[in-house]
Amino acid sequence: MNEHGLIDSAVGKARAAAPMWAQASISTRTHLLRSLADALEAGKDVLVQLADDETHLGAPRLNGEVARTAFQLRGFAEQLELGKSQIRIVDEAVVGVPPVGRPQLTRVLRPLGPVAMFSASNFPFAFSVLGGDTASALAAGCPVVIKAHSGHPKLSQAVYDLALNVIENQGLPDGLLTLVDNASRGAGAYLVQHPDIAAVAFTGSYQGGTALWKLANERPRPIPFFGELGSINPLVALPHALEQNGEALANTLAASMTLGCGQFCTSPGVIVLLEGQASERFVGQLVEALAPIKTHAMLTAGILAGFEQASAHVGANATTLLAPGEADAGPAPRLYACDAATFVANPALREEMFGPGALVVKASDLEQVHQVLDAIGGTLTCTLWGVDQDTPANRALVHAAEAVSGRVLFAGVPTGVAVCAAQQHGGPWPSSTAPQTTSVGYAAMERFLRPVALQDAPVWAQG
Amino acid sequence: MNEHGLIDSAVGKARAAAPMWAQASISTRTHLLRSLADALEAGKDVLVQLADDETHLGAPRLNGEVARTAFQLRGFAEQLELGKSQIRIVDEAVVGVPPVGRPQLTRVLRPLGPVAMFSASNFPFAFSVLGGDTASALAAGCPVVIKAHSGHPKLSQAVYDLALNVIENQGLPDGLLTLVDNASRGAGAYLVQHPDIAAVAFTGSYQGGTALWKLANERPRPIPFFGELGSINPLVALPHALEQNGEALANTLAASMTLGCGQFCTSPGVIVLLEGQASERFVGQLVEALAPIKTHAMLTAGILAGFEQASAHVGANATTLLAPGEADAGPAPRLYACDAATFVANPALREEMFGPGALVVKASDLEQVHQVLDAIGGTLTCTLWGVDQDTPANRALVHAAEAVSGRVLFAGVPTGVAVCAAQQHGGPWPSSTAPQTTSVGYAAMERFLRPVALQDAPVWAQG
Repeated sequence: MNEHGLIDSAVGKARAAAPMWAQASISTRTHLLRSLADALEAGKDVLVQLADDETHLGAPRLNGEVARTAFQLRGFAEQLELGKSQIRIVDEAVVGVPPVGRPQLTRVLRPLGPVAMFSASNFPFAFSVLGGDTASALAAGCPVVIKAHSGHPKLSQAVYDLALNVIENQGLPDGLLTLVDNASRGAGAYLVQHPDIAAVAFTGSYQGGTALWKLANERPRPIPFFGELGSINPLVALPHALEQNGEALANTLAASMTLGCGQFCTSPGVIVLLEGQASERFVGQLVEALAPIKTHAMLTAGILAGFEQASAHVGANATTLLAPGEADAGPAPRLYACDAATFVANPALREEMFGPGALVVKASDLEQVHQVLDAIGGTLTCTLWGVDQDTPANRALVHAAEAVSGRVLFAGVPTGVAVCAAQQHGGPWPSSTAPQTTSVGYAAMERFLRPVALQDAPVWAQG
Repeated sequence: MNEHGLIDSAVGKARAAAPMWAQASISTRTHLLRSLADALEAGKDVLVQLADDETHLGAPRLNGEVARTAFQLRGFAEQLELGKSQIRIVDEAVVGVPPVGRPQLTRVLRPLGPVAMFSASNFPFAFSVLGGDTASALAAGCPVVIKAHSGHPKLSQAVYDLALNVIENQGLPDGLLTLVDNASRGAGAYLVQHPDIAAVAFTGSYQGGTALWKLANERPRPIPFFGELGSINPLVALPHALEQNGEALANTLAASMTLGCGQFCTSPGVIVLLEGQASERFVGQLVEALAPIKTHAMLTAGILAGFEQASAHVGANATTLLAPGEADAGPAPRLYACDAATFVANPALREEMFGPGALVVKASDLEQVHQVLDAIGGTLTCTLWGVDQDTPANRALVHAAEAVSGRVLFAGVPTGVAVCAAQQHGGPWPSSTAPQTTSVGYAAMERFLRPVALQDAPVWAQG
């Protein structure tokens, strides 16, 4: 079968399975989600070895990621048991003329249908075959057609085989989860435009994500496209925070910047400081903390090339604070600097460096900090250090941070995204194509549900 | 000032007012919403006269619409008092390593910012200057830039003047509500692409709506576009329902088809019947009920021309059951027929006739009914008559109806959309550009709010 034939077959199976899965009981869904988690953990040793061979992320991180992936699958099962897919609003009939008089209405949530899921390069477990998008779509009642990532094809196949085994053992249709493997870029386009695909979940680069988003919008019937596209994650550090605790904060920030060789969509990429002694000292501490850090190999040669190119672009438009030293297994960390006016004026400085690099932006006052955030426009996270007191200036800064981001941190670093109900991982464009939704945390399930109002429906139809 | 200058000025005022309004107290917002409702009712007599001159909809309907508009404004105020704009999810910190260990997270909702609101032709009050989109956006904390509809410019100005007076009397910034009047089509495009516009609400035609939706997506930073684009609203009537009650149902359906000269996005446009005696008799009853109905003038000459064109397209591809008689003030009702296979094969038959016309589709069995619904793909409503018993066939029909629509009715007719919390007015493409949202009912406010997660935030920042 050719590539399109394979996709037609996968989507056809998903379409056939959709009505059954949409109407499957909560216990059927939770049993599957929990069994997938169990199977993943049971296969951990072999899978982590495979993943490390393909991604270089190292066993400790990969074991942690398996734990996270299993936790997510079980977490969505719990959400189902809490009734989160069955939220109903009932308005009883009111006798009389409108606007007061009305029929009986029940608002229910219904699954969208088959979801095309594009795996991430940088989370071979947690945002791949059985990752957050798959878990939330399955929980919502949608079959998933998985586009495996070319960076870890063997792992994807192994996880898929394990999942399919669980599905078949439970007597469920194999169309619940299908894998489109070894597929070309054109195949991804074909999948997004397939008439039986009802929604797309994507985690990856701005370039790749927006290309597919455009294709989803060019369909005869456009469909929701949930794209998480990466981000530059500004961190604003006010002087008094740095005075108290500069060295420890510099070490924390350097570790966050270089974690996983900087291959996180929440990696802090822009550090906004107010001019002055405390900031100067902090920059020195940061350079000192970064310089000796050795990184592991990046996920793919393409990602390495992209990082070198992006950091060269930024470097060409800024001062270099830390020139990259000799590469270890992965590229050496690097740090650049510019002033706020230059940052605002030059879009090249807002390019994401997906890797261990960051840009220090020096603002002369808080107004310039606001201008910097405003220029960034959309980001997954914004971190504020030293914004603890309830003052008008701090409130304005929090408001500005909220206006451009999906998560505002008042301490710590943005890497590490907790899986919980309160999480929001998705901010204004360009960090997300659907900023009112999240791809991490339990609200992610809402992406795959659509409200339907049932008017004067018999009780059996209001389930 | 030229057209673009006027829009720049309006959006500039809206941008300036946005932070204040985003942070305004609930009582400030509810006071404004209720005062707008009061002012509208107080000015009713003059406004209804103006509206009737411009729209020909008649005083009874227009008085009802004022009541609905005031009801909506007050309804959103009540929603605010119920805390619907302040929904928070709190996850306390958990000590330990991830995935169990986590920081403290609070998920809050924040307004998107200035909303461009395109008024509808067919609801000069309820979906225009102070209509549902404006009420829900203001309630959410967003200033609104109103693009008045060219079909009722004097009314729009009069309602706006009244609203501005209320805003100024309450000492609120006039940027909360600005009016872009007498604007060309190019001006609408300029407004949608203005960098300080954060979202668009649109009610109107598929052609106009998708053109603006494309422009919103072509911005350097695309923004949410909530377009309600009209619909063909299938009504499936099973034989046993028609046997019991055919004549009354025919009268009800004829009245729904011709209400407001058929100028409703929920007007029933496709009547799906199973071949047989009961259906044949019903068709006769429907023709008889429709033939004598006189309509009022349509909203604009363009809408009349569009209706004549669309019904000619449908007529050219179908049998004519009721040829249009002599026009009264408005066009005469008309009814066409085709078989299910023809309907499925020919997209021209799925064109919306925005006016007093409908197409009867005759299916030979339930499987063909499913094929018809599937071909429709997206519609605001789907009405099912005779689907009362809990049988597998009925469940399958309900599932199929839910799959293509935002509201499924089990009795009555789709015209008349109750304003309440359970309402859903928005279905899959082409009926809506954002099928997971509603433009009628209290969930409409969610369109203008975005979740933000606050991590380790001080209490004052979690408000």
